[in-house]
Amino acid sequence: MRLLAFTIDHQPRIGALTDAGVIDFSLVDAAAPTDLGTVIKKERLAELAAILAESDGTVHHQLADLDLQLPLAAPGKILCLGLNYMDHIAEGPFEKQSFPAIFMRSSTSLVAARKPILAPRMSNTMDYEAELAVIIGQKCKHLTTDNALNVIAGYSCFNDGSVREYQRHTIQWTMGKNFDQTGPFGPLLVTPDELPPAAGGLKIECRLNGQTVQSSTTDMMIFNVVETLVYITEAMTLDAGDIVIMGTPSGVGHGRKPPLWMRDGDVVEVEIEKIGLLSNPVKAI
Amino acid sequence: MRLLAFTIDHQPRIGALTDAGVIDFSLVDAAAPTDLGTVIKKERLAELAAILAESDGTVHHQLADLDLQLPLAAPGKILCLGLNYMDHIAEGPFEKQSFPAIFMRSSTSLVAARKPILAPRMSNTMDYEAELAVIIGQKCKHLTTDNALNVIAGYSCFNDGSVREYQRHTIQWTMGKNFDQTGPFGPLLVTPDELPPAAGGLKIECRLNGQTVQSSTTDMMIFNVVETLVYITEAMTLDAGDIVIMGTPSGVGHGRKPPLWMRDGDVVEVEIEKIGLLSNPVKAI
Repeated sequence: MRLLAFTIDHQPRIGALTDAGVIDFSLVDAAAPTDLGTVIKKERLAELAAILAESDGTVHHQLADLDLQLPLAAPGKILCLGLNYMDHIAEGPFEKQSFPAIFMRSSTSLVAARKPILAPRMSNTMDYEAELAVIIGQKCKHLTTDNALNVIAGYSCFNDGSVREYQRHTIQWTMGKNFDQTGPFGPLLVTPDELPPAAGGLKIECRLNGQTVQSSTTDMMIFNVVETLVYITEAMTLDAGDIVIMGTPSGVGHGRKPPLWMRDGDVVEVEIEKIGLLSNPVKAI
Repeated sequence: MRLLAFTIDHQPRIGALTDAGVIDFSLVDAAAPTDLGTVIKKERLAELAAILAESDGTVHHQLADLDLQLPLAAPGKILCLGLNYMDHIAEGPFEKQSFPAIFMRSSTSLVAARKPILAPRMSNTMDYEAELAVIIGQKCKHLTTDNALNVIAGYSCFNDGSVREYQRHTIQWTMGKNFDQTGPFGPLLVTPDELPPAAGGLKIECRLNGQTVQSSTTDMMIFNVVETLVYITEAMTLDAGDIVIMGTPSGVGHGRKPPLWMRDGDVVEVEIEKIGLLSNPVKAI
């Protein structure tokens, strides 16, 4: 399923995107859930599939007309990888790491598709980073290469928006990665059955004002999804609603000469093959 | 007030610690709140003060008898400072930073007073760090030096337990700071009126098996509480229930020759003058 969250008259709804448009679960079954966060566990995703099976395929909305929301209204932990594509490492000041380099974002830094990324007044160094997001669907620890993929509820697009000046204030990147409303996430949560194993081999792109600025494939990651989940769960319990964000390929703004920063009025798009398009305007505040 | 959370017969309660013992709010007023997380906003703290004013001062419990819980059962963002005492910087591999070096912990890494710190099987490099915790009591952004202290609901003790080997796996510290149940927090939430401004000038200590291993004062911080809140809120909105943890003085285990790691059966105590004692056994898993 290619799931999404939206509101109609400020009421939350969830739907499934088909080639013809969006099937609104609430219009197939009035008792359908309205929060993807509550249904990302495997058994509840099966409920959604059952509702879709009841549907005659009639679509209720077109994607373009919807007021899209974050796929998860209240995500759990948000763990991000840095330096996970060799070509991106080559354009920056840091060396290849021996393990996944993990930092965290807070949910206050997220923003839904089509809503504005807020470029803060304090710095003009707002940068984009196209990334694959992995959404966890069950509580887990000490995952192995054999079972790690079983805990994934779905995949989505992420734009790891970064205020580079603040990211470089100290040796920890957290400040530059946590400005309010700088991390676009969504709009689709695509279940693993729709995709190659571990979302491998998919084209990933970022476009700024229509110009392609990043273009790679998810096979170019240094630490893949399985290795990353195994590593993270050596330390911490992951739970349904936690998100792991897999790092960005080359082409970011700070690696360019001259640097290319996002500015008021820009439109930035992250697109991952089969996982969808995440587009946001940029608004200076 | 010196507030704390505990359970009796698995039911949550909150109380106020006095010199004679603990006044149980539920036994003064059956309608009293039972979750400090819901009452840390200023107006609701006033409700607690009003209940205490109804009390004749009779204590209901002794602190030693209680099953203590985290002061906040569901904290928000947990922002930690590294390298915030000069003497601690001198014992490690990193240099003084020009800004507060911020990383995040997740709530899965927390543990209540007296509950075991879990020393993980994967590494024997489990270290202690005595720290002052600042608990935010209201939504805020762009704080100034004039108003930053107004948003603080209270102060607590924190032990920023760190698996050094994982902390050093990459240039980002997050992994070593987020092992499950490695960050003791509590037991008291002490309101600002009980303390010097910004909790300044207080003795802060860590003891391992009764031996003092860290001893400093909160005046020795490089970035004080006000400067830190102003800096953080340049980037992000803080909200009631968010926690800012202010860094540790010298004496940590990894700075010693030979290093001093926490091991199964150890008891580690963090004590901050007027803010209380946070004691935890260590359990290898």
